[in-house]
Amino acid sequence: MDNATLIVLLALLQYMFFTARVGLGRGKYKVDAPACGGDENFERLFRVQQNTMEQLIVFIPATFAFAYYLSPKWVLAVGAVFIIGRFLYATEYVKDPKTRTPGMGMTLLANVVLVLGALFGVVKGMF
Amino acid sequence: MDNATLIVLLALLQYMFFTARVGLGRGKYKVDAPACGGDENFERLFRVQQNTMEQLIVFIPATFAFAYYLSPKWVLAVGAVFIIGRFLYATEYVKDPKTRTPGMGMTLLANVVLVLGALFGVVKGMF
Amino acid sequence: MDNATLIVLLALLQYMFFTARVGLGRGKYKVDAPACGGDENFERLFRVQQNTMEQLIVFIPATFAFAYYLSPKWVLAVGAVFIIGRFLYATEYVKDPKTRTPGMGMTLLANVVLVLGALFGVVKGMF
Repeated sequence: MDNATLIVLLALLQYMFFTARVGLGRGKYKVDAPACGGDENFERLFRVQQNTMEQLIVFIPATFAFAYYLSPKWVLAVGAVFIIGRFLYATEYVKDPKTRTPGMGMTLLANVVLVLGALFGVVKGMF
Repeated sequence: MDNATLIVLLALLQYMFFTARVGLGRGKYKVDAPACGGDENFERLFRVQQNTMEQLIVFIPATFAFAYYLSPKWVLAVGAVFIIGRFLYATEYVKDPKTRTPGMGMTLLANVVLVLGALFGVVKGMF
Repeated sequence: MDNATLIVLLALLQYMFFTARVGLGRGKYKVDAPACGGDENFERLFRVQQNTMEQLIVFIPATFAFAYYLSPKWVLAVGAVFIIGRFLYATEYVKDPKTRTPGMGMTLLANVVLVLGALFGVVKGMF
């Protein structure tokens, strides 16, 4: 499970970077807690972090399950697609939310491959 | 851990379906990113996804811990209660948020059973 | 992995307590679903839960990876810092969001130590 752990930890570092930008954005755009809106630029940083969390809740368990039940080697490739897709998504979203689609598509595709691949592996092993 | 993995992957597929509805809802109800509000119907779809994530953060690790430390068999039953409860919750919430209580109760109950059961198992094993 | 599981389950119980306060807060502050705002006191309870989830998505996998690849003993200490920090954060945030910084800092520090420690452990093991 070394490969899966490595990929997950790198994705977590990326997420912590997105989270730090939200924290710094509160000062920069003058959005005091508990508010999470009121400034379009802050909202973009916030949604990048939130959406990454929404994807990680699938990505983390699916990465481990895919590595264990299907392929500890291919998990590196699919995980890389997820992380690069998230980077594109975050970069584009901050410039203009309308251009986030390709990066978003890469992370969704990676998650679908991980979940369906792991499901195939675990079900196959039961018979 | 095959049973726990199977249950978690099925719950993730359900969550991905809820997430897809939010994405499609942006077009249908004209809610452009980064906004997440402004239309009651969109907000219902969004809250179904968000609340499912809020529950999955407990459900996923607790399912594995329950299967490992207490019962790899009963995890299937408790996991099924969670998934069916989430389905009821989502169906009712979209019609009328006030009717979401029974489905919500089923998923909360499942999570309490999983966390307390796993805690019992891990603590018992330490003595 | 007993220590890691114990720490994660205790953090989940704490999170379930924060989540229950949000549910009860809906009645107390008259914030009907799907709304998540409109009352400052409710928003504080909501943000405590949301921010805890945002941290748990890092904390849970990093705790297991740190225990497995680096130290099953030290994970108890770092995990305790996280849970105590979250308790401080939640208590202070509800009184006044401006005073949440020390508790927030403790949980961020714990997460950084867990992720970097686990990364060090897994990479070291590969060579």
